[in-house]
Amino acid sequence: MRPADAYPDPADAPALRWGILAPGGIARRFAHEIPRYTASRVVAVGSRDLGRAEAFAADHDIPRAYGSYAELVADGEVDAVYVASPHSAHLELASLALTAGRPVLVEKSLTRNAAEARELFDLAASRGLFAMEAMWSRFLPHYRAVVDAVHDGAIGEVLTVTAQHGQHLVFGPEHRLWDPALAGGAMLDLTVYPLSFAHALLGVPDQVHAFGALSELGVDTGETVVLRYGERTVAVAQASLETAMANEATIAGTHGRIDLAGSFYTPVEVALSTHDGASWRLPVQHEGGFQFQAAEVARRVAAGETSSPLMSWQASVEVMELMDEARAQLGVVFPGE
Amino acid sequence: MRPADAYPDPADAPALRWGILAPGGIARRFAHEIPRYTASRVVAVGSRDLGRAEAFAADHDIPRAYGSYAELVADGEVDAVYVASPHSAHLELASLALTAGRPVLVEKSLTRNAAEARELFDLAASRGLFAMEAMWSRFLPHYRAVVDAVHDGAIGEVLTVTAQHGQHLVFGPEHRLWDPALAGGAMLDLTVYPLSFAHALLGVPDQVHAFGALSELGVDTGETVVLRYGERTVAVAQASLETAMANEATIAGTHGRIDLAGSFYTPVEVALSTHDGASWRLPVQHEGGFQFQAAEVARRVAAGETSSPLMSWQASVEVMELMDEARAQLGVVFPGE
Repeated sequence: MRPADAYPDPADAPALRWGILAPGGIARRFAHEIPRYTASRVVAVGSRDLGRAEAFAADHDIPRAYGSYAELVADGEVDAVYVASPHSAHLELASLALTAGRPVLVEKSLTRNAAEARELFDLAASRGLFAMEAMWSRFLPHYRAVVDAVHDGAIGEVLTVTAQHGQHLVFGPEHRLWDPALAGGAMLDLTVYPLSFAHALLGVPDQVHAFGALSELGVDTGETVVLRYGERTVAVAQASLETAMANEATIAGTHGRIDLAGSFYTPVEVALSTHDGASWRLPVQHEGGFQFQAAEVARRVAAGETSSPLMSWQASVEVMELMDEARAQLGVVFPGE
Repeated sequence: MRPADAYPDPADAPALRWGILAPGGIARRFAHEIPRYTASRVVAVGSRDLGRAEAFAADHDIPRAYGSYAELVADGEVDAVYVASPHSAHLELASLALTAGRPVLVEKSLTRNAAEARELFDLAASRGLFAMEAMWSRFLPHYRAVVDAVHDGAIGEVLTVTAQHGQHLVFGPEHRLWDPALAGGAMLDLTVYPLSFAHALLGVPDQVHAFGALSELGVDTGETVVLRYGERTVAVAQASLETAMANEATIAGTHGRIDLAGSFYTPVEVALSTHDGASWRLPVQHEGGFQFQAAEVARRVAAGETSSPLMSWQASVEVMELMDEARAQLGVVFPGE
């Protein structure tokens, strides 16, 4: 496996002036990590609730707070917009930013479904603007090292991939995750991680088999999704809103195995062992995590590109298609889809 | 979780004089561990090949070696017979022993299919003789503690069970595991462990979905079997003859999780953690492993019983039925079935 420092340092990326649309938990983490680990800064935040925007701005030393999304995207000193709303509003807010001429980084899952993802990227293409899904794990050095090692054949032919993302989320039915109108459920928030991991390793499966449970309001509280690639390879993605899983990932191949020790989608130690007795460990070498995706945006935008090969438009659409299929099998439909 | 010493010590069980039918790798381990960790002894071994029986007897200080199975089961000083042949001969050899009036412990998987399992137990019932599948893991203290903890509700409602048994077995197509005529393949040798684990925890599933790969000769080289219990609970059993998996098991429930650290079906450390922050570790407290099942046979035979509740006839038949269904979905048929 390549060492973590084989991948570019986020601190070396060009600086961007970020605007955040919709201050919430995930925006909080972005606002904390980007100024700390990159040359970029968050210069504005927009919310439908000005008081909320102002409180968020005060917490994170952000110069400007807006009481509407339109005001934020009109701010001429915002180089790029990070969309951090619930999934149900991703397309609308990203479209607002793109129409105003701003490149966008859109929190994962990108949209509610693949049709919305295509609409978002079509708009970016028509404007010649950068757009990317904020699937931050894909940009982490250990994650890239694992994907590169597998693609380089380090463990031979991949036979099984397993990955979980189970969280014991105790908040009640008033939370967005329990609300179908806000595209709640485990799929777009949690299952997207193991699914995107399998996709990064193996691409588009030949078959999808989803087994899951629905809440009374019809959101998926958790699922096991089996992806089949050809005759020999199976990936199993599991997630739950109700239980804290081990959240490890393992890739087993004909020549060896790679284990991601815990919470595989965050910075963790990776171990590779081959059947001939060789082994390799990749320790965690950094804090944070969101800086890697933000640095990638800064590099691509500076280069005048509209997408990143690390999370391409096609990859985002393919993962959304996977989730569309899994949701269809589970019977999860969001109002207005 | 109960401590390991909550379960009876194999050294305290009554003594049995064992005869072994078919000396091979698994018989070797039995012959090594039983005299070392219990009051029982192996007094005879039988093979179609007298030289092989004699060599095995010499290796393990076994007094008598026979060049036929019939001679062994006729030995009046054999209290119980351990059937350790390939799966394809389990029914035949167990029937020979039962017909001669000997209680039997039959290596897992019990038989090739559920019909054979029923035939075996019907014969034991008609003779009033003890019979049990040698699913040795079910008798290990850590395994019993886990099953008891789950049944006691220690982690609430079980939502997911995952367990693997992947081995990188490099021997070639002449080996029994690659031979359909000897009931080869991953299912009866490896997958039976995670399937029996799920069964011990959750019983008979409502649905079975098997995804696997077949060799050129038509044995399964590995599979992922999804078991559904009601709407909310999923167990995933994975196995492979081609790759060394992590072989861990995890049970995630609404109140917490139990992790079996590695090779869950052997003596390993167990960790229980609950969502309210409590945690409990059960360290490994013994060597060997086969002594627990052998001690259980000795206790039940001494008590005049024909089965053990720890691996009941019904449980064995139910697991065989699971494997029949999974094999049917994979298209694995053994010649003569």
